[in-house]
Formats: sequence, C-alpha cells, structure tokens
Amino acid sequence: MTTGQGPIRPTGGAHTALRPATAARITDGFWAARRRTNAEVSIPQGPAKLEEAGNLANLRAAAGGDGTFSGDFPFQDSDVHKWLEAASWHLAEHPGDSRLVSHVDEFTELLAAAQEPGGYLQTHYQVAHPEKRWTELGWGHELYCAGHLIQAAVAHHRATGRRELLTVAVRFAEHIDATVDGVCGHPEIETALVELYRETGERRWLELASAFVDRRGHGLLDADVNPHLGPAYWQDHTPVREATSVTGHAVRQLYLLAGVTDLASEAADPELRATAERLWEAMVASKTYLTGGVGSRHEGEAFGEPYELPPDRAYAETCAAIASIQWSWRMALLTGEAKYSDLVERTLYNGFLSGAGLDGESWLYVNPLLVREEYEGANEADKAARRVPWFRCACCPPNVMRLLASLPHYMASGDADGLQLHQYATGVYEAGGGRVRVETAYPWHGRISVTVEEAPEAAEWTLSLRIPSWSTGRTATAPDGSAPAEASPGWLRLRRPWAPGDTFTLDLDLDARLTRPDPRVDAVRGCVAIERGPLVYCLEGVDQQPGVRFDDLTLPDGARLEARDEPGLMGGVTLLSAGGARRSDGAAVRLTAVPYCVWANRRQGPMRVWIPRE
Amino acid sequence: MTTGQGPIRPTGGAHTALRPATAARITDGFWAARRRTNAEVSIPQGPAKLEEAGNLANLRAAAGGDGTFSGDFPFQDSDVHKWLEAASWHLAEHPGDSRLVSHVDEFTELLAAAQEPGGYLQTHYQVAHPEKRWTELGWGHELYCAGHLIQAAVAHHRATGRRELLTVAVRFAEHIDATVDGVCGHPEIETALVELYRETGERRWLELASAFVDRRGHGLLDADVNPHLGPAYWQDHTPVREATSVTGHAVRQLYLLAGVTDLASEAADPELRATAERLWEAMVASKTYLTGGVGSRHEGEAFGEPYELPPDRAYAETCAAIASIQWSWRMALLTGEAKYSDLVERTLYNGFLSGAGLDGESWLYVNPLLVREEYEGANEADKAARRVPWFRCACCPPNVMRLLASLPHYMASGDADGLQLHQYATGVYEAGGGRVRVETAYPWHGRISVTVEEAPEAAEWTLSLRIPSWSTGRTATAPDGSAPAEASPGWLRLRRPWAPGDTFTLDLDLDARLTRPDPRVDAVRGCVAIERGPLVYCLEGVDQQPGVRFDDLTLPDGARLEARDEPGLMGGVTLLSAGGARRSDGAAVRLTAVPYCVWANRRQGPMRVWIPRE
Repeated sequence: MTTGQGPIRPTGGAHTALRPATAARITDGFWAARRRTNAEVSIPQGPAKLEEAGNLANLRAAAGGDGTFSGDFPFQDSDVHKWLEAASWHLAEHPGDSRLVSHVDEFTELLAAAQEPGGYLQTHYQVAHPEKRWTELGWGHELYCAGHLIQAAVAHHRATGRRELLTVAVRFAEHIDATVDGVCGHPEIETALVELYRETGERRWLELASAFVDRRGHGLLDADVNPHLGPAYWQDHTPVREATSVTGHAVRQLYLLAGVTDLASEAADPELRATAERLWEAMVASKTYLTGGVGSRHEGEAFGEPYELPPDRAYAETCAAIASIQWSWRMALLTGEAKYSDLVERTLYNGFLSGAGLDGESWLYVNPLLVREEYEGANEADKAARRVPWFRCACCPPNVMRLLASLPHYMASGDADGLQLHQYATGVYEAGGGRVRVETAYPWHGRISVTVEEAPEAAEWTLSLRIPSWSTGRTATAPDGSAPAEASPGWLRLRRPWAPGDTFTLDLDLDARLTRPDPRVDAVRGCVAIERGPLVYCLEGVDQQPGVRFDDLTLPDGARLEARDEPGLMGGVTLLSAGGARRSDGAAVRLTAVPYCVWANRRQGPMRVWIPRE
Repeated sequence: MTTGQGPIRPTGGAHTALRPATAARITDGFWAARRRTNAEVSIPQGPAKLEEAGNLANLRAAAGGDGTFSGDFPFQDSDVHKWLEAASWHLAEHPGDSRLVSHVDEFTELLAAAQEPGGYLQTHYQVAHPEKRWTELGWGHELYCAGHLIQAAVAHHRATGRRELLTVAVRFAEHIDATVDGVCGHPEIETALVELYRETGERRWLELASAFVDRRGHGLLDADVNPHLGPAYWQDHTPVREATSVTGHAVRQLYLLAGVTDLASEAADPELRATAERLWEAMVASKTYLTGGVGSRHEGEAFGEPYELPPDRAYAETCAAIASIQWSWRMALLTGEAKYSDLVERTLYNGFLSGAGLDGESWLYVNPLLVREEYEGANEADKAARRVPWFRCACCPPNVMRLLASLPHYMASGDADGLQLHQYATGVYEAGGGRVRVETAYPWHGRISVTVEEAPEAAEWTLSLRIPSWSTGRTATAPDGSAPAEASPGWLRLRRPWAPGDTFTLDLDLDARLTRPDPRVDAVRGCVAIERGPLVYCLEGVDQQPGVRFDDLTLPDGARLEARDEPGLMGGVTLLSAGGARRSDGAAVRLTAVPYCVWANRRQGPMRVWIPRE
C-alpha cells in the first residue's frame, strides 16, 4: 500500500496533528495471516455471494434488464460498494490479481450502466419504487448508499489511478447536491463527501458534508418509520454540536462522528472537534465493552444507557466495531493522542476480529461476551451466537473485508518531526520523512524491533512507539543501549539522529492479567476477565474439563495464570490456563482460556469472557 | 361478584381439582383501595381514551359512517373489547352504575352495527384493507381481536345476563369456524373459545380451540413479517405438545398456554396437561423475575434465554404479568397445587401492580428492576421508565382494568370437601358448599382471620389456607385453640365440623428478609434484594440521603432491616430501612426501601431492586 492508498488522506491544509503513513505494508505475523485469508477466501467469494443474494441482479435490472428487486432492504447496493472498496484496497497491494480486476471492472461498468442520465443510482428505487425516490429519507438509505459508493470510488481511484468509478460517484454526488434538501436516516455520506473533497479538491463536497451534519437534530426526518425507536435511531434527536453522549443506532452514530471528525480536521471548527472529543470520552467511559465492542442493544442496534453492558445480550455489531475503529483512527490523526489508537487496538484484536471466522467464510453479526450452557436460540433468526456464511442484511462481511484490506493504513503515521507506530505488525512503514521495518511476533510475544531503513540525514528525527495502556512492565532499548522513558502520555519517543540499520527495541511484558469491571456495570459484577497483551480471553465449553458444568466454573481471586503456545490450534494461539473452582462444591478445576477473537470457530457451545469470582 | 361471574367457569365435567368460588367479594384493604381507583378513575376514563385514540371512530366507520382507519395497529379493536370486559366485571358488582351501563350499551350497539352480515368484525380490515382480510394471519390479529371480543361477550353475559354482545361474538365465531383454515400470529382466541364453549355449551367451540392449538408449529404462518424475530415470535416454532420451554413473544406464549390449560381442563388430555406443567416449571426455573415479571427482552417482547434476566432491560410487560396470572390461576384450578397461586401472588403484588399508577391514570408498559442515576432515555419512545397517560399500543391499560375488575375471582376456590383461600384480602368468599369472611391488613400485617359464615351442617368440612412459599415462620390457630400444621405442600388444611362464627386464624411472620439471586442469573450477581411478605421492595432515589450518589449505595451482608408504617405515603405503605454503606469509602448510609409496586409514582429518578452487597 503506497502513498495515499488508504481511506483517509487529509489535505495539505488539514488541521490534523498527524498524517497517515505515506506507505505501509504488513508482511508477516498475526495480521498478515488474517489478511491472507481475506485476500484468498473472503474477497474472492464476494462476487458469488452478491450474485446469490441478488445484489448484482438488481444492478442489471436498473441498467435496463428485466427483473424485480431482490433482497429485503433498500440498501442492498451498499454491499456491492463495500466489496468494491475492499477489492480496491487489495488491488493497491496486488495490482496483478487479474480475477479480481475483471470483477471490479464488471461491477464498475454495471454501476455506470445502472446510473441514470441525471446521476441517480439506487436500484431499490429505480427497480421497485421509482415514484418514491427522495421521499423516504429516513429508511430509504439513498444517501447512505451514495456514501459507500463514494468511498469505493475514492478507493478505486487511489488504488488503481482509474477514474471510471469516481466519475459515477461524482455524478451521483452532483445530483444529490442539486436535489436533496433533507438528511439521511443512516449517516455515512458525511465522511464520504469529505474524502471526495480530499480526492477531487472540490470544496463543494466539504460544504455539502457540513450541511448534512448540521441538518440533523431538527426533526427533518420522518419519524413514522419505526416510531417506537425514537429519533435517536436516525441520529435526529439533537443537533450534533449539542450532543452529550453517544446514543441511538451505534453504526449510524459512529459513521456520523467519523464525518464530524473529518470536518473538524479539514475546517478550523473547534466546536466540532470538542464535540467529537466529548462524545468519544462518553463512549469509552460507560458504553464500551472490554472487547471494544459498542452498541449493547439488539433493539434498535443501539447504544444503551450508561453502564448498560450486558455480556449475553451484547449486540456489539461487527460493523459498529469497524465504525469505532474508523472514527478513533481519525481522532488519533486529528489530535495525536495515543488513547485513540489504544481503543483501535482493543477493538481490532477483540470485538472486530471476532466477527470474522478463521476460515474467511463464516461470520458473526453480533458479538456477545457470554453464551450460557443452556442456550436455546429459539428466538433468533440469523443473528444467533454461531457463525453463518452470509446474512440477509449483509452489511458486516464486506465491511470486514474492506477494513482488513486497508489495515496497513491504520498502523503508522508521520508528522514534521518523525514517524509514529500506533499498532505493531511485522512490515514496512514510511511516514514523516523516514521508513522503518518492524519485526514482531505480537500479540503472542512482546518484543517489537523497529529498524530504521531511511531517516533524514544528519538531523534529529523522532521515532515514536505507542505504549498500550494495558502495559505495566516494559523495556525499551535505544540503538546506543540506553532506555528511553515514556514522554507524552502513551508515547515512547526517541529523538536522535538515525542511521539506516539503527534498531529501537521495545519489550512489552505480556504476563496474563485479571481485569475487574467497573462496579457500575451491573451485568458483570462479581466477575473477572482474563487478558494478555491486547487480547481479551474467554472460556469456551469445548476446552474445559469434561464432566464439569460450564455454569459451575469460577475463578477465585489470586488464581495464577499460565500461558502455553499452541501452534497447531486455530492457526496458532497462546492458550491460558488457571486453577479455578467449582461453585457448587469448591472442588479444584482447571480452566482453559482462548483469545476471544477466535471463539465460535470450533463446535458450538457455551462461552464467557467475564468469569464469576466466587 | 356472584356465581359464575368470573372469567373462568369450568363445566360440570371438567377435569379440574378445584372450582372457582361461586361468589367472592373484596370489601376492604389493600386490593379494595386499588380496585376503587380502577372503578372510579381508570374504567370511567376508558371511553374518552378510546375516543381520543380513534378506536371508536374505527367502529363507526365500519358501521357505515365516514372515516379512515385510526391507529398504528390492526388490533385497535381489542382495546375496546378489553375495556368492555373490564366494565362488565365491574357491573357484576355494581349493576346500577348507570354511566358505565350506557357506555357498555353504546359500544355493544356499535359493535353489532359494525359487524358484517356474514359475521366478520375487525375494523382495520373493514375500513382500510377489505381485500386483505384473512390473508395476513401472522400480523393481522383478526383471531386475536375475536378472542378478546368473545371474552368481553362472555363477561357481559355473565355479569348482566344480557345476550346482545354474546350474539355478536357467536356470529363472528361461526364465521371464523366456516372460513379460517390457518392460525393467528397472536394466540388469544384459544382460551376465549374454551370459555365460549363453557358459556354456550356448544362443543364446536372446544373443538375449534383444540384445532387452533394443534395447528401451531407447522409453519402455517407467514414468516415474512418481521422475519428477524423468527417463528417463536408467532408461537409457530414448534408444536405445542413438543415444546420444552417458554419462548418467543411472552404475551403470545402465555395466552396460548392459558388456552392449552383450559383444553386440558375440559378434555381428558394428559399430554396437554403435562405440556402445561412442564412449561410452567421451565418458566419459573429460569425465566421469571423476582417480581413475577416475565419476558425479559425488548426485542420481540420475548422470553430470553434461560437465566437471561437483566434488571435494567427487563421488558416484563404489564400484559405479560397479567397473562402469567391468568395462566397460573388456571393451573391452580386444574391441579390444586399451591405453587401456582404462589406465583399469582408474587406477580399480582409486584410485576403486575407496578404497571398501574396509584392515580389510576398513569401506566407503565415495561417494568424494569433497575433505572440508573445516569439514565438518559434518549432511545425510548413511549416505553421509557416513567408513567404515561396512554400508549400508542394501548394493550396494557384496559388489560389492567379487566384484571382488577375480576380480581375477586382469583382469591378462592372450592371442591367437594371444602373451601380454599389462595390469596388474602378482606372480603367474603363462597365455595365448596360454604362461605367464609376474611379480615386482614395483609400485605402490611400478617394476621389473617377467617370466620366461617356458612358450612355444611354436622359434617366435616375442610378449610384450606395457602401458605406462601416465602413464609418461614407462622402460627395457625384453630377454633379449638389447636395449631394445625401444613398438610400437602403449601396448604394448611383444617378438617372438622364448622359452625357459623368459628374462626381460623393464621399469623404470618412478616419480618423483612434479604433474598440472594440464583447464581446463574449473571445480571444480578453479587446483589441482594429486600422482600417483606409478598412484596418485593426497591430503593428509589427520592427516598435516599441527600448528597449520596445512588450508584454508590451498597447493602452489606448482615444488615438489619427495620419496618415503619407510613399511612400518609402513597396511600399507606410500610417502609423498610437498613444500614448500608457507600462503596467508594465504606461510610455508613441509611437506605430506605419502598414496595416495588408503588415505584415511579413520585418524581422521576433512579430505582433498583437488586442492591450490590459490596
């Protein structure tokens, strides 16, 4: 992935503390393996899935062929757009993947053919309800689909240099600018338009994004669709600038805040920046799971009340985790503060990754932290606690694909003074005028070696390594053998003249630890969770001693945790075990924990992150 | 309320262990006060509410007047039916209430006028979608409305002896019998048809009820409406006889099981009886709140998984509590076992009564067990944690009215050998060939005096008093001064010759107690609840020491509870107080608890039933 090939590219005049890396490649290790599966299984299967679900037939019907609209939702097109974005980021690294190239070309042509002369493009309204376009902004998802189309087009342009899809997206955006007075029930176009401004240099897109953000909260949306969910579902409950907490539909809230942060980055708007900072703090303080998952309610796919974080009914939609990562990364770039990338790490390794099966072709839409032994599943349709090959509402799989395909973009940044490593994955990162090579077996092992390949000659330059907030013990070793200390909160900074080959080593202490919950989170009172490095662990029924009831397992205070690498298990994981006790009779029992991100990849059974202490 | 004037009247050949009292009157005390408010405020306000919400306009439109259909739901008529049932039970006791009589007559005439010559009667389809009748059984609620119409008609006939409404109901039932091959998405007609059989003696209604019960679970219902809820929502997930747990939409599940129990009572069908017993045990074992509330999920208004009983997101719909009471009472009559009336008591005094405001004109639809200090309420429309005057979906208020109006029916029963008192309220109860007068200040005080007014002369006769399962200490005193002991589980039985004036006294120990939750209910681990007699208590913010944060309150083990009668507070309640501690610094703090059934009647604020122990 080279210059500008990631999803975010602030303009030269942007008010961000940091800039994304100008080039980034993940070459080996934990994320390389998951990205390989994404590239070899998930993304290549996309076209067949979109064909099966009727998304492509909808485009053909809109392009003048026969057919009725397929699918249960007006936003079926967005699955195609998100897949195109994922495929584009993949092509940025593998331009010669001819099978993908031909699918991308085919879908691009199909979109161009489906687009009306005036620029309109949404098959649901074109095929099924032409008379209703732009009349149902609450549930219509027209601007939402436009947003995903724009993001795909920007990705395609950045990755391949080709303009066909961008032309389609710009024509649709022009139509929208000329036609739409309202605002969409599902935010998404806001962040997309800012990126379109960045890609095209046309200020009108920034202004349109700004208008969409500030139109909310004034009752413009038709509340008659799902009225029992209330205006927060549509992010129309309050003007964004006045909001005090994240609320309503989680993905809608977070896509909106990504757009708000983009606007704050491109326009000097301290009020918008303060809004984003305030809402991010509120989210982390009382509405985020240990896994980084957000949106605790099934009802309305919504953020719950403060401290309403049930482990069993955690909705924690995979898409919400992705949206949280996208927003937090924008906040990290805007502010330069390490805490934002800290949440990105927690979410990436846990609540996001759990959504993607190890096989690359099985998915979770919701990501609970507890499945009981007595699980019946009788109420669930396709959102149960087991992986499925695709969803009726298929927003999550292509969203996972696009995040994994663009993951290198989230690893490093630069500024006038140097390069910052936010996440640790073996690879090469170029930013802030230099280039470094990272070698690490993170998250299984704590050593991170950063070797400078290029740095400004004969001048001081700063290499910054993020210190994860979970880290209590670590050793940093500069090329001269000295041990630099933490500088600004969360950053280890080494400022010196660098020569190619100089190595800065960070050894993070990866002792497993027991984490107690905030006492205000009623749903997990009296429990403890196991973590190691950035990984949250969980007990799965399949790993426990036979003959012991899962709901009888407890982990008494002071239990000692032991780590054991299992290279043959689920692609290689570090298992943790501990001496537990049966609640019923106090008898000793061995507990075995696996990383939460790999749960539900073996046989179905109970699982819990939060383990009763007594 | 005299012979047969309650909602359930088993035939002479019914296979029930017990028969409802032949006459029952509540004359004073706790329930008399709540029933007075029901009679003087709630029921009289009904016609205006139904007018405002458009329910009556719908009937006029169907009767040939002008107008479009009002209201968001196809089942708007059922609010009228339930109000008619409530008014009828009221008229059984107060036949001279002329204002109510005229409304009942008016609505009855309106229903007769709205009914089509063929017998069909549902204004939603008559006024808005005549072409769709009987084509949308999943969501159409036609049979559901018919069920409520039948129950209202039976009530009207029993209470007043008049046949006009019964004639309308029978004509609709005949139309249904001739027309409908499917089954309704919302059970209700099953139990209603059994009662219609009981009232008319026509066996076809019993057979039709039986057919409706056994058609379920075979995929007859169109699953395309709300497909993400799955077939359990419609009670179509499994044949009833094969079900192993209560699941899906709680009210639907419980109305269905009332019908199943009625069928088991009238037809010798041991399989249906075993089904009802099995499902009742499953409900009580892992799907019932301490308050008796059931249906823990907002999503789908459904029973959750076993042990999924969150206090904050407890849905515990007022209607589900009513349905649970109706079902359990049928089980008590069928089996004669005390445990069923034990659950009736728990539900009546807590999860049901909380739904009705003390003023008789403010209501709760959902009945949570926890509202945090930080409550935002931004996601809620009309199901928030505060009372409202009516609902868009107004099922609960008239349901409360009909239960309170028919409450005497649930107090006592008889069999060949004597009379059983299931619930304790000052009044007169006639059953099993005798009549007793009860005097008590229950639930505030534990003395229950039962004086025989009439009993079979010169023969032994058994007076049975239910011993609540919460009772650990008690004294029973027979007329001769002896102290009879518990006989069969949950029953104190005194068999002897009785003379008018003989008094049997039961003194229940009402010491307040601390209740620990089942350790498998994760959501309230580490907490304790306060109970006294049949009443569950809660902390409300308004009663606590100023300057102490609500979420900082704990109730350490061994805390001593003190009771104090407050005759001037909320109609007279017994307050409980205890020495608590602040979690933050261990400082002593006085906790004050009020009965859960009266919460949310003062200013809005936090509330919790389950209090952290440390």
